[in-house]
Amino acid sequence: MRFPSKAISSTLSARLRAFQIYGANTNVGKTIVSTILCKALKESRDASAQLLKLEIHNVLIHQTSHVSKFSGVTTSCLWQFNDPVSPHLAVPQELNLTDSLLLDKVHNHISSLSNEKGTFILETAGGVHSPTPSGSSQADAYRPLRLPIILIADPALGGISASISAYESLHIRGYDVDRVVVFSNEPYRNDSYLSPKDVGDEEQMLEYYARTAESQELFDLIGDLHSRHAARIQDIKSMPQRAADKIWYPFTQHTSVAADNIRAIDSAHGDHFSVYTPPTVAVSEPAEESAEVLAPRYDGSASWWTQGLGHSNPELALSAAYAAGRYGHVMFPGSIHSPALKLSELLLEKLDNPRLNRVFFSDNGSTGAEVAIKMGLRASRERYGWSSEDKDIGIIGLKGAYHGDTIGAMDAADPGIYNKEVEWYKGRGFWFDFPKVGLSEGKWKVEVPGEQQQELGTSHEFGSLEDIFDISRDSTELAEKYAKYIHTQLHQAINVEGRKFGALMLEPVVLGAAGMHFCDPLFQRTLINVIRNSADLFPQAKLTPAKPAAELVASKATTAWTGLPVIHDEVFTGLYRLGSFSPSHLLHVQPDISIHAKLLTGGLLPLCTTLAGEEIFKSFLSEHKHKALLHGHSYTAHAVGCQVALDSLNIMNTMAEAGEFSIAPSEGKTQTSRDKLWSKWSSEFTTKLSHSPKVESVWALGTVLAITLKAQETGYASNASGWLMDRLKGNGIDARALGNVVYVMTSVSTEDAAVRGLEEVVKGFEEW
Amino acid sequence: MRFPSKAISSTLSARLRAFQIYGANTNVGKTIVSTILCKALKESRDASAQLLKLEIHNVLIHQTSHVSKFSGVTTSCLWQFNDPVSPHLAVPQELNLTDSLLLDKVHNHISSLSNEKGTFILETAGGVHSPTPSGSSQADAYRPLRLPIILIADPALGGISASISAYESLHIRGYDVDRVVVFSNEPYRNDSYLSPKDVGDEEQMLEYYARTAESQELFDLIGDLHSRHAARIQDIKSMPQRAADKIWYPFTQHTSVAADNIRAIDSAHGDHFSVYTPPTVAVSEPAEESAEVLAPRYDGSASWWTQGLGHSNPELALSAAYAAGRYGHVMFPGSIHSPALKLSELLLEKLDNPRLNRVFFSDNGSTGAEVAIKMGLRASRERYGWSSEDKDIGIIGLKGAYHGDTIGAMDAADPGIYNKEVEWYKGRGFWFDFPKVGLSEGKWKVEVPGEQQQELGTSHEFGSLEDIFDISRDSTELAEKYAKYIHTQLHQAINVEGRKFGALMLEPVVLGAAGMHFCDPLFQRTLINVIRNSADLFPQAKLTPAKPAAELVASKATTAWTGLPVIHDEVFTGLYRLGSFSPSHLLHVQPDISIHAKLLTGGLLPLCTTLAGEEIFKSFLSEHKHKALLHGHSYTAHAVGCQVALDSLNIMNTMAEAGEFSIAPSEGKTQTSRDKLWSKWSSEFTTKLSHSPKVESVWALGTVLAITLKAQETGYASNASGWLMDRLKGNGIDARALGNVVYVMTSVSTEDAAVRGLEEVVKGFEEW
Repeated sequence: MRFPSKAISSTLSARLRAFQIYGANTNVGKTIVSTILCKALKESRDASAQLLKLEIHNVLIHQTSHVSKFSGVTTSCLWQFNDPVSPHLAVPQELNLTDSLLLDKVHNHISSLSNEKGTFILETAGGVHSPTPSGSSQADAYRPLRLPIILIADPALGGISASISAYESLHIRGYDVDRVVVFSNEPYRNDSYLSPKDVGDEEQMLEYYARTAESQELFDLIGDLHSRHAARIQDIKSMPQRAADKIWYPFTQHTSVAADNIRAIDSAHGDHFSVYTPPTVAVSEPAEESAEVLAPRYDGSASWWTQGLGHSNPELALSAAYAAGRYGHVMFPGSIHSPALKLSELLLEKLDNPRLNRVFFSDNGSTGAEVAIKMGLRASRERYGWSSEDKDIGIIGLKGAYHGDTIGAMDAADPGIYNKEVEWYKGRGFWFDFPKVGLSEGKWKVEVPGEQQQELGTSHEFGSLEDIFDISRDSTELAEKYAKYIHTQLHQAINVEGRKFGALMLEPVVLGAAGMHFCDPLFQRTLINVIRNSADLFPQAKLTPAKPAAELVASKATTAWTGLPVIHDEVFTGLYRLGSFSPSHLLHVQPDISIHAKLLTGGLLPLCTTLAGEEIFKSFLSEHKHKALLHGHSYTAHAVGCQVALDSLNIMNTMAEAGEFSIAPSEGKTQTSRDKLWSKWSSEFTTKLSHSPKVESVWALGTVLAITLKAQETGYASNASGWLMDRLKGNGIDARALGNVVYVMTSVSTEDAAVRGLEEVVKGFEEW
Repeated sequence: MRFPSKAISSTLSARLRAFQIYGANTNVGKTIVSTILCKALKESRDASAQLLKLEIHNVLIHQTSHVSKFSGVTTSCLWQFNDPVSPHLAVPQELNLTDSLLLDKVHNHISSLSNEKGTFILETAGGVHSPTPSGSSQADAYRPLRLPIILIADPALGGISASISAYESLHIRGYDVDRVVVFSNEPYRNDSYLSPKDVGDEEQMLEYYARTAESQELFDLIGDLHSRHAARIQDIKSMPQRAADKIWYPFTQHTSVAADNIRAIDSAHGDHFSVYTPPTVAVSEPAEESAEVLAPRYDGSASWWTQGLGHSNPELALSAAYAAGRYGHVMFPGSIHSPALKLSELLLEKLDNPRLNRVFFSDNGSTGAEVAIKMGLRASRERYGWSSEDKDIGIIGLKGAYHGDTIGAMDAADPGIYNKEVEWYKGRGFWFDFPKVGLSEGKWKVEVPGEQQQELGTSHEFGSLEDIFDISRDSTELAEKYAKYIHTQLHQAINVEGRKFGALMLEPVVLGAAGMHFCDPLFQRTLINVIRNSADLFPQAKLTPAKPAAELVASKATTAWTGLPVIHDEVFTGLYRLGSFSPSHLLHVQPDISIHAKLLTGGLLPLCTTLAGEEIFKSFLSEHKHKALLHGHSYTAHAVGCQVALDSLNIMNTMAEAGEFSIAPSEGKTQTSRDKLWSKWSSEFTTKLSHSPKVESVWALGTVLAITLKAQETGYASNASGWLMDRLKGNGIDARALGNVVYVMTSVSTEDAAVRGLEEVVKGFEEW
């Protein structure tokens, strides 16, 4: 499912009441209902329903004249075709009537009426899934509008089934079906009226409409539709205040939260939210307030880095429902079900890492990190013969690391703004600062932090980002310096200070929460190589002969861990977020344990997998139950999450194989191959930004764009990004800032045209 | 949705290939397809397809004669009615043809054929949702069989939509649609044949069937159906070995895991799994092996205590899909969406506790417990003026506590088999042993553990379980003894040893993982009262005047916490698991923080909420961002989970209000009212068990039955339950044991008849 690139919000006006009529089948009386409704509204006894404007849009077929004739209201028809076959056949190809064009025209038409008081009815053609001119389903094509639905049921034999199924097709696309209308077959035999084009007796029709317009049922139906419309608006407008009173937001300082800065999300579609934003108290009311309640907002943080295939993707909704309908949740220990097994096999296959052959399921990145830590520490404890009473085993990592918010995951990160106030937090480890990659004034550079500059130099310039990832850098002088520096630091901690470490834990390539820090891949690879190959730091490492890094990478047979188990936390950077299936492929490193979440379900539901190899697995084998890996959540490997993950990974893999991402799979390549890196964002755009005097550096890789602004104070608390965030917000883009770093990301499936559109908007800011 | 009480597994035979034909609408040619298939199979050129038996079941309408006449195969019809209207109208009411009866008859019929090689086709009537005689949907009623589907699409105008919707209705119920067949309208105008009952020209029909039976397409279709059948069997039989190779199971000692003790779950329905169990190597093959691949198993642990409304509940599948289709997952901080807000409001309303007014979302009980701990510790730190550097603040709890497997949740439990081997585990707290409730030799008793017997007596006997919950016990001598004992212990720890505690954390009423320990409610209530009212233990508690327990309970105005914040971990015991919306209502205690997960989503997906009051919330307010509650998962308040939770709680609440649970809501009752307790399990049954010489004690409350067996060694490692577990397993019941304690639980919606059936089975074990 590709989503329209244009920002369209759902339609909801405080004045115009808009509804959509779908039929459970063709020929079920949609036009009759439209006519009845129009006539009744025109003659309404309800004084408050002043019908200034009333239109019928039967977009694709040709019965507007019937409605006008018998109801007397204005009707219009955007396109009219005289062949009573399915629209995708009836519409001449040369019209090139795409879904975007169709949606745009309908949306603009409704918008043009939205300040007028009245009722608007959009009547669709055929059944709910009858094709649009482009061949897609109407239920999908009109979904961005998310108008309340009047579903006309099928009164024929077999119509109960068709009507329920039609309802379900609408419901699982997130439509609200306000009313189901059905013509009774008996005793009035209204079915003889169901085919307006065949009506021969005009007098009979007039008599029929006159009679129905008087009915109490119809009066009640209209009243009910109108009160639902009013209730919907009242509800959404009340939501920010109710949320301010009742919700405790995650990772949020509530002193800055009030009703007027909480947005109510009515729905989402593709990369856009449809939101109600309460009026800011500070701003005076505009002279003439728009009646539009909802506006589109671009989801610039991909909803905390989770989105891959667009919000409200009907394929993923169907996947979720299939697994719910087949299994619900089923007990995992001692059992296996197909979605969990196939997902495990797919991950193992696509990661293509002989060091990984087992999959452990948990619920999110944080729990997955705790599982990885438990795995790594136990493996080291067994290898090095430490006591289970020894609670002071730490981990080695990078500064600014973030692995989640449970206490164990917090403890694996150095003290900082995300954890230091937490009562039970205790940083357990050693964290290296590291050289960072960025594009600055049109040049790709690796910038070394102050405290390392004496050993590692100040800054290193490269011709391209591909040069920075080139594995032949392993044999450069800088690699040697990195190795020496790292070794010296670890020697001090381990051999001099006597500290113990049980694992190396890294976010490969980019440290997200730290501030979208792009670590020099050579530094990460060298750190891993030093730990894997230094028998003086990890004496048992001698058991396996130390090998040069390149050889280790080359040898598929190397599956035993040496030195320390290497954990890759790929929760943010994995599964195509940076363009490759795994960032480990970009790094040309095979971790011993890896963690995958966020994009795993394409952005629908929580699920996490922690993968490890047989040797680590075996360190938990014992005759004692309690030496097992003591971790398990009730919903471990829940079928709904596994099925959605399986299907969304398959969709993304198919896109990748079709060349929609240009990072080729690493298999069969030599180590020194310089894979072309891929980004949603154009290099023309990032280069231009990198020349701005306001910009320290910028980078884009895969779906992510990160802009580091020049600032006095850096880090999470910095406010240097204020102007840019305001500018983005003013242009309908919900970005997030990490101190002086502003990032915007896309889904994997975002249309290129949409990204070009974003770039045009951002480039146009005068402040640059 | 109520599920049939009888155990029926999906139908899958290694010999008989069974399929089901559904139509996208009525009159789409189901009977024609059946006839074509039967004829082709009978005349099959595929030597391997020996058609020993071939039957057509057009269960509800009257066209079997057509199939026999034109294909020459045996057909039968279970019931036949001559009125061509919807079955729920055609079938005489006096037949009382329930879904269970219908399903049973069809299932038995297929089972009777399952050892014969051949093909069986079940043809349904009308469309997929056409009503059964009872008025329910066919797609729901036949779902337990989960036969592979041949869907006959609708070739008429509008049929595309009807066909896609019909497919979706089947798909979201977990059916696998193997093939969609559609008659082409052009150029052969096969549609003129679509109504067999109208066929006048028999010769023309014969010619038609003769022609189609030769077609390559048909040959391919049959080949494809057969290879899918073979592949399905091959796949499910291979799953245990693949799982043994690739999966790392939660909380499982893998030395005891091998392919032959992993069950492959093909699907689930209601309280039953349909599983393939690999043959045990030790047992020799039976002389004549049954061809049935799947067998039903009762989900006796409610899939790790999660199930409320039955596996594969179509209502919850639709809820999940609706939220997925409307929102996908949307960013939570700074936003609000309807499912999260309505769920929060519903929880606050139903908990009816003025101490709670804010809802924090996380992903599972363990993360929810960490959030609760962070809340409680911060509130105490602010109240008592402790430094943020003080990392030695513990919690108070009960021995055997279990709050989850993340490090922070583990740290809140005393050292034991679940945590002591974990490298970063450090028990941080003080845990009381406690008197336990059980039915022994027909008497309800409170048994005091050895170390407390001197102060608290050995054992106390009661007339009923209601007597044990009676709040008037607060003014008994035992209450005084409890209070004195608790106070002495805490005085020693706090005032003598100088330890600091930041929260009291309890699993109200029952400590699940500890071994289904039913704590004397008076002990828990007294512990809370001592902590809330002892100014000498918690000096700041003086700020609020100490009150007698009864007065505290009575006063709705009492919302400020005193002493320590009281955390109720209701993850297992909440949301009707024990029959009441909250176990706090049973206990007549209003906690300051409460945690809800597992049953929250009715048993479909991970989701957790931690609720707290405004005073605790305010202890995180600051001008500094990093003093916020530092916890947040990517999928916080994911719309799918919230919508499913909202809908499933509403369903359960409606059941409760309809009197399906007999624990009345506490509102409006006086404190001393003795609400009648409710249990799925009959007292006749528990009383009988309690008299067995093998049984130490037994209890049943709500959906849970727990049997403590007499044993030399108790606790998780005990093996005293071996014989009972084997007996249950042999009778198709998957129970779980916690050492010498065996428990079986039901869903909230399990039919009483099903529970009576289980009781009969269990009572019959000769070992008692």
